[in-house]
Amino acid sequence: MTKTKRILGLDPGLATLGFGAIEGLPQDPETLQVLDFGVIKTTAGTPLGDRLATIYDDLTTVIQQVQPDVVILEKFFFYRMSSTILVAQARGVIVLVLAQQTMPFLEFTPAQVKQAIAGYGNADKRAVQEAVARELNLTCIPKPDDAADALALALTGWFQPPSG
Amino acid sequence: MTKTKRILGLDPGLATLGFGAIEGLPQDPETLQVLDFGVIKTTAGTPLGDRLATIYDDLTTVIQQVQPDVVILEKFFFYRMSSTILVAQARGVIVLVLAQQTMPFLEFTPAQVKQAIAGYGNADKRAVQEAVARELNLTCIPKPDDAADALALALTGWFQPPSG
Repeated sequence: MTKTKRILGLDPGLATLGFGAIEGLPQDPETLQVLDFGVIKTTAGTPLGDRLATIYDDLTTVIQQVQPDVVILEKFFFYRMSSTILVAQARGVIVLVLAQQTMPFLEFTPAQVKQAIAGYGNADKRAVQEAVARELNLTCIPKPDDAADALALALTGWFQPPSG
Repeated sequence: MTKTKRILGLDPGLATLGFGAIEGLPQDPETLQVLDFGVIKTTAGTPLGDRLATIYDDLTTVIQQVQPDVVILEKFFFYRMSSTILVAQARGVIVLVLAQQTMPFLEFTPAQVKQAIAGYGNADKRAVQEAVARELNLTCIPKPDDAADALALALTGWFQPPSG
């Protein structure tokens, strides 16, 4: 019996954290399908602690429901300094949850995702989204963008050669 | 019956998180005393998730043992960029724990701490540490430095006029 591989992509953010889960038989790309996608949202203007607690609770629930074999996280890169601090604090909570759930994760940069999915590292957003929809046999482009980005991360994980 | 006030100071960091707890009757500064101080340490070179999980677990334990009325946190400021990202991720977990324990917290900058304790905003580290030891009737300066800094933060909270 062959085992399916289940991958959860996460696009980190404080206001919006995108997630997207895919599953398929590694030997048979035709079996690849979307399991779930969406966003965890927190409200601007509410206390930071409450927003981080929402991320902690909701992400724990997503991981327990999806039960992925591996998580793909966007590799940290610098935004504006003020955004960077906020995203870094949210990312600390995300990495905490992954550790608490003993969940292995890989990280890819946006350029690595574009290269893997659209074939070139400076592909535009639309080209990546269309390639994601095509690969996953979707009839439309997933919304919102953060969920589409998370599916692109998961798909990048799917395309990686098995390690070891 | 008058109620004592218990304050926990936290000096955030990924490798070393300093904590220091003080207690006293607001009406009677002579009653002010140190309850506990120390550091939560995580090991460089181990996975970030494991380090954040240590902070999460140990800080939760400290807060449940101390049961402070309020927490004083060093306000975020910029170090070198690489340090900032690491400290910000640890700080996200600290703020998460405070929210989960429904613990109110105030933030002060290093300059505010120096002003409150040594009387001037550019006081050197040694002058602050000696003032902390004097105010708390300690016979020596608390070690390590991160624990002394946490006690300085708690003491800054003690000196604040009651709000409301």
